[in-house]
Amino acid sequence: MSNWLLPEYIQDVLPDEAWCIEQMRARILERLRVSGYQLVSPPMLEYVESLLINGSRDMDLRTFKLVDQLSGRTLALRADITPQVARIDAHLLNRQGVTRLCYAGSVLHTQPVGLSPSRELLQIGAELYGVSGLDADLEIQHLMLELLDLLGIGGVHLDLAHVGVFRALVRDAGIAADLEATLFGVLQRKDMTELRELLAGLPADKQAPLLALPGLYGKADDVLARARKLLPSLPEITAALDALQAAADAVGVLAQEVGIDLAELRGYHYHSGMVFAAYHAGSHDAIALGGRYDELGKGFGRARAATGFSMDLRQLYRLSLPVTTPKGILVPQRSDTDLQEKIAALRAQGEIVVVDLLGDLAHRAELNCDRELVLCDGSWMIVELKNQE
Amino acid sequence: MSNWLLPEYIQDVLPDEAWCIEQMRARILERLRVSGYQLVSPPMLEYVESLLINGSRDMDLRTFKLVDQLSGRTLALRADITPQVARIDAHLLNRQGVTRLCYAGSVLHTQPVGLSPSRELLQIGAELYGVSGLDADLEIQHLMLELLDLLGIGGVHLDLAHVGVFRALVRDAGIAADLEATLFGVLQRKDMTELRELLAGLPADKQAPLLALPGLYGKADDVLARARKLLPSLPEITAALDALQAAADAVGVLAQEVGIDLAELRGYHYHSGMVFAAYHAGSHDAIALGGRYDELGKGFGRARAATGFSMDLRQLYRLSLPVTTPKGILVPQRSDTDLQEKIAALRAQGEIVVVDLLGDLAHRAELNCDRELVLCDGSWMIVELKNQE
Repeated sequence: MSNWLLPEYIQDVLPDEAWCIEQMRARILERLRVSGYQLVSPPMLEYVESLLINGSRDMDLRTFKLVDQLSGRTLALRADITPQVARIDAHLLNRQGVTRLCYAGSVLHTQPVGLSPSRELLQIGAELYGVSGLDADLEIQHLMLELLDLLGIGGVHLDLAHVGVFRALVRDAGIAADLEATLFGVLQRKDMTELRELLAGLPADKQAPLLALPGLYGKADDVLARARKLLPSLPEITAALDALQAAADAVGVLAQEVGIDLAELRGYHYHSGMVFAAYHAGSHDAIALGGRYDELGKGFGRARAATGFSMDLRQLYRLSLPVTTPKGILVPQRSDTDLQEKIAALRAQGEIVVVDLLGDLAHRAELNCDRELVLCDGSWMIVELKNQE
Repeated sequence: MSNWLLPEYIQDVLPDEAWCIEQMRARILERLRVSGYQLVSPPMLEYVESLLINGSRDMDLRTFKLVDQLSGRTLALRADITPQVARIDAHLLNRQGVTRLCYAGSVLHTQPVGLSPSRELLQIGAELYGVSGLDADLEIQHLMLELLDLLGIGGVHLDLAHVGVFRALVRDAGIAADLEATLFGVLQRKDMTELRELLAGLPADKQAPLLALPGLYGKADDVLARARKLLPSLPEITAALDALQAAADAVGVLAQEVGIDLAELRGYHYHSGMVFAAYHAGSHDAIALGGRYDELGKGFGRARAATGFSMDLRQLYRLSLPVTTPKGILVPQRSDTDLQEKIAALRAQGEIVVVDLLGDLAHRAELNCDRELVLCDGSWMIVELKNQE
């Protein structure tokens, strides 16, 4: 085996892309900062029990485990930063009022998710704690769309869903927990034959709304109108549909299109209320997603109203417009004070100044410069770089 | 066990510190960019053979291992980014001339190193490939000291050493590889009794310079003068002492003090030439270190002249002056266009603007604002925030 070989679905990020992603990161974190979201950096490794607090089998399989030599216990490499931020809010900051937090960092998956070409994601996101009302959901959805716009990613399709609709139907039909999990999987696959078989034992009026769910997707107004006819008017369902209506109206201006899919709950592991995902023509998988997860803090000793979103900067880079990275100015290797001051001044202006250590003409192109500093009549001038030999 | 408990020597970085570190990172990466160092982001995980290419037992023990479910092979969580960057230079970029690269990212250690309070470091550094001469060593040392200065970390003591001195003495004395490794350990501990026992079998003229090494530390000029007397004038040793002299002269202006310690090679796993470390009164361990490692690329198929340095941003944060993070402006939750425009303008200026979603006076202090926007005679004005109830 060659030592330079990387594991499958693991990549290096090379200069142009790495710098572009770094700038995207800086711009997003600055926008989050001025919006009142305070940055936290949770660790890459935690005890497995802490990271898998929500008990999702899917996340368990997706999470790398290793042994802590100091404690003998099992550690996990984080596959998602949101549960860590929920822990910080619930336990560490322990504020009573509204708390806004944001983060950016690597997460790793044992297997690629969806059509992602990578098992290492650069997750960036924001979380809003302490507000159970719709205002919080709207602030978070608005912020997510604003950040995509900031990155120049237009033509976004926003998909809304609500975990409460499925949960209310299950509760109303008296479905047991193990059947609920199977049902959830079948709904995600929109497998109508299997769905009918699973629900066969239920009374017809309990079957009908669950059978209707897979068809309740499409443009927001249309889906909501059909849902109000096809679903029972349970208080949770009415509240969920009202919230979806309000969100579709409020954030519609920021997205090219707003859709609703009442059976789409894939990827929402610990969510408890309205969930949402942004899609783009350039990507099969969602490019940003999030939602309400009021139950997660409970595992850390304090349930808190919570909503947030996250995205993968590497995925967003692949959708953003190509950026030409600026070229530098080549300078000779000399210690004159004049030259050193000129170099410092150019660098302070943001110019890349590269010292030509070897004066090696054959490989000059590799230095990525298009200008050079030359001494003309006793002062240093910038001139176009002569062709290499 | 409480779910919020973190493993030993693993910490969350909370808001003020996290933002401060983020800014330090941005300033350093910008300075590296304008100095011609191109950013790369190698992955968190690689095959263990790639990350432990230099075969150091110390790094092996320090590196977390885990199993790749896709290949069944052993992966390692990086404990150092430099070997990854050497791999990128040697194999991926494959440039023939001078290559300057930089990086920033998390590294993890199975056990805390030195007196470090953490097993997760935020390593940032720069590497210069393709130049074997002293100019490259000086550019790298200069850059490291410039970055410490940029972060406001003054009073730096620079310690220089040279792996070539020990290597030349061992070769000259005909010492076998296994004894060399033991000798290396004993020298680090400066255990003279054990050193004498180990060297007992050698002729007196081969013993003397090795016995002199542990005493060859202190101010640069003094150590070099003594070394030229006590060490044999082998070509490698003369070259090493000349290089140390030139470095001490050249970078002396940027450090408060320059010392030389010819027996200090601890922490230099893959180094092959001049090595250096920056010390500060506020830290027992080196705050930045690096040196020449011309042999590392060979493991990736292409030996390249190489020198570089790295530091831990979290450690540097602990040494930097406390920064007061700015407070925000509280605004009411209203959708008027006027207010929304005012908020956008303030945020574009870098002001933190926090929407008061709950209007909850009891926990207002948690929102970290010292001003608020109020409507005065039809226009939005910034006023000092009234005391909370």
